[in-house]
Amino acid sequence: MPNNNIGRTRWAIAEGYIPGSSTGEGSAFVSHETACILNATDREAHIEITLYFTDRDPVGPYKLSVAPQRTQHFRFNDLDDPEPVPRDTSYASVVESDVPIVVQHTRLDSRQSELALLSTVAYAEGE
Amino acid sequence: MPNNNIGRTRWAIAEGYIPGSSTGEGSAFVSHETACILNATDREAHIEITLYFTDRDPVGPYKLSVAPQRTQHFRFNDLDDPEPVPRDTSYASVVESDVPIVVQHTRLDSRQSELALLSTVAYAEGE
Amino acid sequence: MPNNNIGRTRWAIAEGYIPGSSTGEGSAFVSHETACILNATDREAHIEITLYFTDRDPVGPYKLSVAPQRTQHFRFNDLDDPEPVPRDTSYASVVESDVPIVVQHTRLDSRQSELALLSTVAYAEGE
Amino acid sequence: MPNNNIGRTRWAIAEGYIPGSSTGEGSAFVSHETACILNATDREAHIEITLYFTDRDPVGPYKLSVAPQRTQHFRFNDLDDPEPVPRDTSYASVVESDVPIVVQHTRLDSRQSELALLSTVAYAEGE
Repeated sequence: MPNNNIGRTRWAIAEGYIPGSSTGEGSAFVSHETACILNATDREAHIEITLYFTDRDPVGPYKLSVAPQRTQHFRFNDLDDPEPVPRDTSYASVVESDVPIVVQHTRLDSRQSELALLSTVAYAEGE
Repeated sequence: MPNNNIGRTRWAIAEGYIPGSSTGEGSAFVSHETACILNATDREAHIEITLYFTDRDPVGPYKLSVAPQRTQHFRFNDLDDPEPVPRDTSYASVVESDVPIVVQHTRLDSRQSELALLSTVAYAEGE
Repeated sequence: MPNNNIGRTRWAIAEGYIPGSSTGEGSAFVSHETACILNATDREAHIEITLYFTDRDPVGPYKLSVAPQRTQHFRFNDLDDPEPVPRDTSYASVVESDVPIVVQHTRLDSRQSELALLSTVAYAEGE
Repeated sequence: MPNNNIGRTRWAIAEGYIPGSSTGEGSAFVSHETACILNATDREAHIEITLYFTDRDPVGPYKLSVAPQRTQHFRFNDLDDPEPVPRDTSYASVVESDVPIVVQHTRLDSRQSELALLSTVAYAEGE
């Protein structure tokens, strides 16, 4: 069931923020920020993420790959090469791929006892 | 009031996850994941959903239909042919239809006493 | 500051649902569903909303208007002509306008003591 | 890593509302409404925001700038020239830039002890 014509090659998430503290129990409830990536094609997706900040130069590329016909949910919390993503800092991200992918952005904020969960399809561009 | 020219024929939801536990009372508050589908055309929509996973081959198609000028809210929790959707597992979905439809993705997470609700229009493609 | 070229003339919201009960205090916290409409053009927008259901024919049009260079937040709870929107019932909506508009969909769910708030830009189509 | 071809030059957020009260502790939890803007290009973005209301003329432009390859999260709460954004009032906004940008809209509502957080990519238009 490969599907080579769904998705785009460039995506942007203008809103990024990993809270520095959490109150939930268990790793599922640690505040986190996720890029959910679907690669429905029959080729491996080679993906580069660049992070943009308010007052310093962009950092990247963070290199990831997603196998053909697979989905991968990447936590920005876990990115560490070339460097970890700073906490309590606003950032934006651009996701570029050599095959069409679909990107959705999700954040769980558990700084207070009440959870806040948001999700939105990222901004899409490219062939 | 048929409206034959609103919607697309291919949709993708990159973020899917059905929590394995719930705390709310009553079925409306059971953690669930829904694809809300609108078929505003004057023809029945024959729909196929394919699920993509992190570490195994895609599963599907799940076959659904939506009558002309009707909307249907499908819970992924209820899909069981060819197999149930696993809990506590990340997945993505592609929704394909033979007539234009509109797809919105909603999740209620009731794992903690506080509810988290998210919704986003799915990624659209196709004529 | 009229802006005649932002927006579209056909929008769809596939997910609609007005909970039948509320726990919040004050009308701002009554469970509600809103279509936020921006008309940035220099002409009045004549708008027709059609509601689609799971098991009966569509209802509408609900006729609304938005003055030039104004925004209006319509609560589906308040629509009553040709008939009120049923509670605890899934529905979808199509919004059509004679001038370009922008539509965003918001729901406040206050059935439990915790509030759930969602918002997403509607699906856009048309010139 | 400048990226001159991601984004659009006109964006609209149909839903705007800054609650007049808050319950959270610390400025991060004060109810607020944010436009997260990414300028991935190699040129400074000169941005004008116009606010639209229900029953009076539009206000603006609010003039902002975002340096090349930077992201900026603007709180509508902080805009004050030509005038502050009124609280407890529905508004919509149009964001125009001389270079392509990406805009995401986020609101934290802390009027009750439970937080509500929403985010959605804004409506995009323009080359």
